[in-house]
Amino acid sequence: MKYSTIYKSALLDDVLPFWGKYSLDNENGGYFTCLDQKGKVYDTDKFVWLQGRQVWLYSMLYNELEKKDYWLDVARSGMKFLRKYGRDDQGNFYFSLTSDGRPLVQPYNIFSDCFAAMAFAQYAKAADDAYAADIAKMTYRNILDRRTAPKGIYEKSTGTRALKNFALPMILSNLVLELEHVLPSEQVESTLDHCVEEVMEVFLRKESGLIYENVDKDGTLNDSFDGRLINPGHGLEAMWFIADIGTRRNDDKLIQKAKNTVLRLLDYGWDDTYGGIFYFMDAKGYPPQQLEHDQKLWWVHLEALVALAKMYELTECPKIWDWYDRVHQYTWTHFPDPVHGEWYGYLNRQGHPHLTLKGGKWKGCFHVPRALYQCWKTFEKIENKKTVQ
Amino acid sequence: MKYSTIYKSALLDDVLPFWGKYSLDNENGGYFTCLDQKGKVYDTDKFVWLQGRQVWLYSMLYNELEKKDYWLDVARSGMKFLRKYGRDDQGNFYFSLTSDGRPLVQPYNIFSDCFAAMAFAQYAKAADDAYAADIAKMTYRNILDRRTAPKGIYEKSTGTRALKNFALPMILSNLVLELEHVLPSEQVESTLDHCVEEVMEVFLRKESGLIYENVDKDGTLNDSFDGRLINPGHGLEAMWFIADIGTRRNDDKLIQKAKNTVLRLLDYGWDDTYGGIFYFMDAKGYPPQQLEHDQKLWWVHLEALVALAKMYELTECPKIWDWYDRVHQYTWTHFPDPVHGEWYGYLNRQGHPHLTLKGGKWKGCFHVPRALYQCWKTFEKIENKKTVQ
Repeated sequence: MKYSTIYKSALLDDVLPFWGKYSLDNENGGYFTCLDQKGKVYDTDKFVWLQGRQVWLYSMLYNELEKKDYWLDVARSGMKFLRKYGRDDQGNFYFSLTSDGRPLVQPYNIFSDCFAAMAFAQYAKAADDAYAADIAKMTYRNILDRRTAPKGIYEKSTGTRALKNFALPMILSNLVLELEHVLPSEQVESTLDHCVEEVMEVFLRKESGLIYENVDKDGTLNDSFDGRLINPGHGLEAMWFIADIGTRRNDDKLIQKAKNTVLRLLDYGWDDTYGGIFYFMDAKGYPPQQLEHDQKLWWVHLEALVALAKMYELTECPKIWDWYDRVHQYTWTHFPDPVHGEWYGYLNRQGHPHLTLKGGKWKGCFHVPRALYQCWKTFEKIENKKTVQ
Repeated sequence: MKYSTIYKSALLDDVLPFWGKYSLDNENGGYFTCLDQKGKVYDTDKFVWLQGRQVWLYSMLYNELEKKDYWLDVARSGMKFLRKYGRDDQGNFYFSLTSDGRPLVQPYNIFSDCFAAMAFAQYAKAADDAYAADIAKMTYRNILDRRTAPKGIYEKSTGTRALKNFALPMILSNLVLELEHVLPSEQVESTLDHCVEEVMEVFLRKESGLIYENVDKDGTLNDSFDGRLINPGHGLEAMWFIADIGTRRNDDKLIQKAKNTVLRLLDYGWDDTYGGIFYFMDAKGYPPQQLEHDQKLWWVHLEALVALAKMYELTECPKIWDWYDRVHQYTWTHFPDPVHGEWYGYLNRQGHPHLTLKGGKWKGCFHVPRALYQCWKTFEKIENKKTVQ
């Protein structure tokens, strides 16, 4: 079977039906994301990251794949839930809510706002909804206002060791393109300039070729738990965001640099003993703080496949293809659940699911379907090129 | 070899020499706790939990075992470091500091204060130091003032689901006895009454015999991630604190109840497939939030051994002995490192160290030596009784 067909079929025949069948809260709107192996809801709390991401996913499918009313209805349900219950008086998004919308955890996490902004922007495009577009814009402005102190009053660090974190410029490099239709074009380009600079010149280090999760405010490395932290999956995901920017700007040098970083991160992060990509590593090889450091996570492997497929489409580099093949083998034999559908999220180092959930506090309807969609469309391009040749 | 001799030798010939050799910061005072497998310092940050616990441990040895000047010197070094750098202007203890005492993480965690109070109180007794005794008292008063809102301004929960947590009454049940020599005796007894009530009647549930980590403020169970959380090791540790209170009060009913809870928690928390005690469990059998849920941690097994030894000494229950035997076998064959000394902290579910550190952000000079000391002294009593018979 062609790769494009494998990804298309997994998306349309397995993953979307699973979330459509089990995750919809028909009473309160929005989505249940705590689904056990068989799809049964085992907890009803609603996490704003995952509510926003599912709104985004269904809106994106409506915008990019097919104008299915059902997809727009699913997206609208979560959009209305977030619009009604998601924000505090200052427009900051809570981290989590009860199933009926009462706030549980305060807006300490700026990524709640990032995924909400993505959600409202895609939904606005899908439904031609000015109100949603306005919320997307306001939320984006709020994110920019908060970016130097993203945790606000919930920041526990004293400032003695003031580090800056990779996640925000990384997410912004994707988010600003998601919001392109609601932002002035100069702002889009200047934000992209800034993000590319931060990701590729500050967090990506010349001396090692690795992407660090945290560096000093002045851009130097910091020898501490946070300062030594490497998250290979995070870097791999960022590299396909960068590849998209390279494609948009026709910047082959940027694409080549991103491609080399993908190779380096895989070489560094791959577990030669059991296969798969480690979750967290310490740049000096010291014991990481994270007890889950050696686990194999679904999103890490899916983002690696997206990065590799895109890099292959753009560069046809044989080393990229070798890695694609290896990561494909591991991912497709370990993560999908052939019995109950959808994908496992959390494997132990040896590759066995140590949590059999299909969704929880952090795993929702997002990385699996987004990656399947991205790989499907990328392989269509690769396969079409080959047919033309 | 007699059990008492095994524990004594591990404490005096292995564990104490390891910390004495590798953990002392002779430049700034206090202790390095991030020690790799061989004892090499891999990170110099100082975590107040662990600074306080090491001061306590060396002071306790001086008070209970032998008046060695060296032990008092080691304790004094950490005490002076904490006294000089540990607190903010309101007397709250920071969570962590740089090696030279600059605050890194704000006082968001009341257990920093709990372990500091224990440390200053034991040190005060060892050195007959009124200043240290005063800090212990002030810190204890501060803990009581903060107990209804222990995270203060760093609390991220909105109050929609106001749970109370097991850890504070559990720690207090031990802490108040640690501070007995500096507190009015009515306060000691009333706090013990309160803690015993909370631990044995509120967090320990009649219907299941299990101890929950969180319950509603009114004492009912809450069906949420936090509300379903079980930490068997935490419960086992609490049961030996309760056994100590039962002994002090000559309350056999309380001891029997604690003994039955030890049996229940081990039966519930034991991994029948690979052996060892799970770290976190969900009371309804749902997937826990904690990715490390199935790991086997050093402190869990050591606290289980202390609880079992004490329960055997107090009740001579054969079922307790069977469990002692099983936990002993697992613990002594999996945790000690016969090559480089001291004990591993973090085993994967299968029982292999997945972090080979001897100390880190959470593992310091505390659970291993405290448990070795407790088991040594308890087995001496058990063995003496047998000799007398």
